[in-house]
Amino acid sequence: MAPHGEGSDASVEAMVAQVEKHPISSILIIIAMQTEALPVVNKFQLIENPHSSFPKGVPWIHYHGAYKDIIINLVWPGKDLTFGVDSVGTISASLVTYASIQALQPDLIINAGTAGGFKEKGAAIGDVFLVSHVAFHDRRIPIPVFDLYGVGLRQTYSTPNLLKALNLKTGKLSTGDSLDMSPHDEASITANDATVKDMEGAAVAYVAELLKVPAIFVKAVTDMVDGEKPTAEEFLQNLAAVTATLEEVVTQVIDFISGKCLPEL
Amino acid sequence: MAPHGEGSDASVEAMVAQVEKHPISSILIIIAMQTEALPVVNKFQLIENPHSSFPKGVPWIHYHGAYKDIIINLVWPGKDLTFGVDSVGTISASLVTYASIQALQPDLIINAGTAGGFKEKGAAIGDVFLVSHVAFHDRRIPIPVFDLYGVGLRQTYSTPNLLKALNLKTGKLSTGDSLDMSPHDEASITANDATVKDMEGAAVAYVAELLKVPAIFVKAVTDMVDGEKPTAEEFLQNLAAVTATLEEVVTQVIDFISGKCLPEL
Repeated sequence: MAPHGEGSDASVEAMVAQVEKHPISSILIIIAMQTEALPVVNKFQLIENPHSSFPKGVPWIHYHGAYKDIIINLVWPGKDLTFGVDSVGTISASLVTYASIQALQPDLIINAGTAGGFKEKGAAIGDVFLVSHVAFHDRRIPIPVFDLYGVGLRQTYSTPNLLKALNLKTGKLSTGDSLDMSPHDEASITANDATVKDMEGAAVAYVAELLKVPAIFVKAVTDMVDGEKPTAEEFLQNLAAVTATLEEVVTQVIDFISGKCLPEL
Repeated sequence: MAPHGEGSDASVEAMVAQVEKHPISSILIIIAMQTEALPVVNKFQLIENPHSSFPKGVPWIHYHGAYKDIIINLVWPGKDLTFGVDSVGTISASLVTYASIQALQPDLIINAGTAGGFKEKGAAIGDVFLVSHVAFHDRRIPIPVFDLYGVGLRQTYSTPNLLKALNLKTGKLSTGDSLDMSPHDEASITANDATVKDMEGAAVAYVAELLKVPAIFVKAVTDMVDGEKPTAEEFLQNLAAVTATLEEVVTQVIDFISGKCLPEL
């Protein structure tokens, strides 16, 4: 079997090293829901790219624009072609992250979105977290080593200066394709030591690592998973207010990034 | 918002219509595990393509070769770069299906692999199923319409003549990212009316539909989900024998396809 990727590693490292010495010039924001995406689109006056490099027929939407010295790309996986709802979850997130990296070659990925929080771990509604680690909670494969692959624990790209400057909370994120939480999910989320729970983060992190692009995760809490109210009800109730907060923090992140190199974050 | 894909639908339909009139000339076989893939690779003397169109650094392996009048492409997502195990599950399956369709433009996709079976629904170890429908059992989103999106029920490309000629069993497939089955999964699998359970099928079907490529699903039963033995143990015990059976059936499928147009399947 031929050695895969060995020849490329050196060039990728050289590319990353080169990027690290220059201010970040291009970012890719991945957002799963239209309600979460539009405040950011409006804030930066991004416009939809009708000639995106995505295949014909897919619902994925590419918005872009310039802000200060940064090209901002925002990709939203769009409405499902069959059901008409936002294409949430890990599969769509993986596909658009992959296709967007291929098309746009960003210096940095920001996965922004809403999340459930655990009050037991210090989360409150409206909190915005800059995630330290991601893992999956619904990929249980009880065979040695496959179990670790399933959990897929990853450290996110470390941005200590950003975290300090914006005074954000930090914690671990656990990702799964269900909005609710089964007892099996709960056990895995506890094992993952997660403070926030979403439906895309670990998938975006997996693809970003595969293609060697640094990625950070900004997650705003819409509902308390370990609270009294039903998740879906609380999520829908707080969605509009929390997405406004999310836009403010994404703006602060982009303002902080502007003019800086990756190691300065 | 610009109309997405509307202009492309006509051309895709024209392309499909054109393909339908000509014998199938190129197939893409997606297989998740090396143990499942190698018998097929050896049978058709496929060779690894060291110059695949996949991005540098990804572990995905493209094998190809010619058999009778068909170009056979087989893609296996390879060993996880961190953990060294097969890159099983819906995310890798989605990514390689997407990237392979883009690179190879196949006439037909065959997702072949092992699966758990339900004896209550008539499955037995070593059975090979040609799947009629696929759905997910671990994407629970209890919000109207999102719930249906999560389940993602899809009919597979219909091949009544193939089913009859090969005398295969047929049934519904339910897909999830866990090898085990939690009570929540079980309730969803029952709701999906599934006879077999795997970790990739519905994801491959989603991407194939997105990019408008017909897909069929050949699943060989390694373990009884509702049997006495633990799934992981029974799966590993039967894996080698069942993958030999899987190769035989995939060969029969390709022999049947050879020289035929899509509507003749």
